[in-house]
Amino acid sequence: MATVPLLTDEEAPAESRAVFDAIRAARGTDHVNNFWRVLAHDPAALRATWERLQAVMAPGALDPLVKELIYVAVSAANGCGYCVHSHSAAARAKGMTPEMHSELLAVIAMASQTNALATALQVPTDPLFLED
Amino acid sequence: MATVPLLTDEEAPAESRAVFDAIRAARGTDHVNNFWRVLAHDPAALRATWERLQAVMAPGALDPLVKELIYVAVSAANGCGYCVHSHSAAARAKGMTPEMHSELLAVIAMASQTNALATALQVPTDPLFLED
Amino acid sequence: MATVPLLTDEEAPAESRAVFDAIRAARGTDHVNNFWRVLAHDPAALRATWERLQAVMAPGALDPLVKELIYVAVSAANGCGYCVHSHSAAARAKGMTPEMHSELLAVIAMASQTNALATALQVPTDPLFLED
Amino acid sequence: MATVPLLTDEEAPAESRAVFDAIRAARGTDHVNNFWRVLAHDPAALRATWERLQAVMAPGALDPLVKELIYVAVSAANGCGYCVHSHSAAARAKGMTPEMHSELLAVIAMASQTNALATALQVPTDPLFLED
Amino acid sequence: MATVPLLTDEEAPAESRAVFDAIRAARGTDHVNNFWRVLAHDPAALRATWERLQAVMAPGALDPLVKELIYVAVSAANGCGYCVHSHSAAARAKGMTPEMHSELLAVIAMASQTNALATALQVPTDPLFLED
Amino acid sequence: MATVPLLTDEEAPAESRAVFDAIRAARGTDHVNNFWRVLAHDPAALRATWERLQAVMAPGALDPLVKELIYVAVSAANGCGYCVHSHSAAARAKGMTPEMHSELLAVIAMASQTNALATALQVPTDPLFLED
Repeated sequence: MATVPLLTDEEAPAESRAVFDAIRAARGTDHVNNFWRVLAHDPAALRATWERLQAVMAPGALDPLVKELIYVAVSAANGCGYCVHSHSAAARAKGMTPEMHSELLAVIAMASQTNALATALQVPTDPLFLED
Repeated sequence: MATVPLLTDEEAPAESRAVFDAIRAARGTDHVNNFWRVLAHDPAALRATWERLQAVMAPGALDPLVKELIYVAVSAANGCGYCVHSHSAAARAKGMTPEMHSELLAVIAMASQTNALATALQVPTDPLFLED
Repeated sequence: MATVPLLTDEEAPAESRAVFDAIRAARGTDHVNNFWRVLAHDPAALRATWERLQAVMAPGALDPLVKELIYVAVSAANGCGYCVHSHSAAARAKGMTPEMHSELLAVIAMASQTNALATALQVPTDPLFLED
Repeated sequence: MATVPLLTDEEAPAESRAVFDAIRAARGTDHVNNFWRVLAHDPAALRATWERLQAVMAPGALDPLVKELIYVAVSAANGCGYCVHSHSAAARAKGMTPEMHSELLAVIAMASQTNALATALQVPTDPLFLED
Repeated sequence: MATVPLLTDEEAPAESRAVFDAIRAARGTDHVNNFWRVLAHDPAALRATWERLQAVMAPGALDPLVKELIYVAVSAANGCGYCVHSHSAAARAKGMTPEMHSELLAVIAMASQTNALATALQVPTDPLFLED
Repeated sequence: MATVPLLTDEEAPAESRAVFDAIRAARGTDHVNNFWRVLAHDPAALRATWERLQAVMAPGALDPLVKELIYVAVSAANGCGYCVHSHSAAARAKGMTPEMHSELLAVIAMASQTNALATALQVPTDPLFLED
């Protein structure tokens, strides 16, 4: 149903299978999700995307759950259904409670509403916001 | 430069001026930013938007800084320049460090990239993500 | 400031100048706006766009003001600042009152908010909506 | 299939069930659509969204059918399939004829096309449009 | 499942059936895809869209395959699943190899990422880019 | 005017200055554009973005000019003004003629229009497009 076939472990090039194994090890699950199975046609892209994702989502100045919430928010604003589903599941796995989910949704709704108003009104940016 | 005039305190209807005062009190500053000054043509919309924003951004299961980060992310994904500027400033005022900002940007970039890939490939959602 | 030069009447190819004249005649003004001056590099595209616009925006089952309101709404949702400005001006010229403008903005804000919620929640479409 | 379960009347919190009843009464139908059933996890958000929607879509300077057409247009531009379906159905229920629907689609297509051109060419806004 | 019924050859108005025949002749296939079958309710829109598409996608300064790749890229960025599927199939029919597809995806991902960064940072345009 | 200061060579961390030098060498110009100067606050992100961009835009199954055209198209669809300007300039530097530019714009406009129609009509994907 994707625009390219989903590759099983058997069909994937060896270099992609190695990334599948890295995904399994990092996540402690046997499931390799469809996103990786379509990217597997291009082992270099698969590896680069997986490795960058690991680096970006690692604990840092922001904790991993906060990063997942931001990921869900961007995915919703960009209209990516697949990403909303997979990162909402990831956020729950990292500790998102129903209350956090409701508040995340409320911020997404609020921002979308004021984004639309500011754009529909073409509000000029306050000079105050432009100071370094 | 907006599609309607920015209203000064003198030009704004009394009911809108009252909201301006509430904004000043809540934020501890004399500055009422341009977004509110264009909304002031419609006092009911101004009040409803301001009050809902206060409720949504209040401390809850998520803290106010996390909410501002999510707000910036949605605003960037929606392409609202005004909102990116005003909420980046708000996030800094609430404690966003340069390291947090860099990580926020990295998550936005990562999500935008994988959102685009998942959409360009029309990846079907894994049944696993669809379970309640 | 555009990615191609704005063409004056003198610089524009003769076929584009003829479209400029058609625009002036249809609108009863001497002003040919910037959108047409950048399209003028490609006279065929200029003519096709202008003629299709005239046909689409003409009175029909929907009146021209309603069409302009829809145009503004789409332009805002698509984040086109130029289009928001030019079609808000056109809507005013066709009779949009401040009250209509406020209600237009309220619908844009409401839709943007519920669009974001439905996407962030990946709400499945009710079978009822899918019947012919 | 949503990212949270759809709540039946039995599963919904009492406060959400009361909003379901208000929806049924206002619409004269027993059907409560999926959007409200997922929002029902957060009774305050459900009530706020429903009440604001009623206020925004009520007759005013613009009639309810015009507001529905604008709602469909924004939903299409924002890529919300659920919202396109539900508000196209609502527009038909409020009197949208096939001719109106065709004209709505033509304006959406035209605006999307010129929005893309203005953005791809980065057309500067005419000073004329920036006057109050 | 569309918001209007898909029209079979028998159901379509005669003028739309004539466009169906033109599509079949141009493409050397009996299949008329769903996009045209929903547009067929409005024969004028169907004809205008089909004819403009033929003109735009014809060989010119850019070859038809390059145009299809651009079409896929825009469709992905606009989040149109239908269009991603139909134009990816068209690109393959015009000679897009798996290597080209991988590179197309890599450019879409790269652009989406830097678009998001430039917007989230509100980078001012270099004066150099604004010279004619 | 960005949400973080543009860093001059003197202000940038040493590791970022090294990337500036790589950019200058690769492009044969002394100008380092604003996008890189804002990313320079985060040397790791700067290097990763620059290196990935070099790899993605290198000659391959698609030539660099075709890749730039795709980049412009995605940037326009995503509404990134900065990116439209910088990649239109890059495309011209790589050989985009005015005729190519006009055809690029025509494809962007056509795709945006049919994307909007397919979404506003919620056209179901033809089974034919879903076969591997």
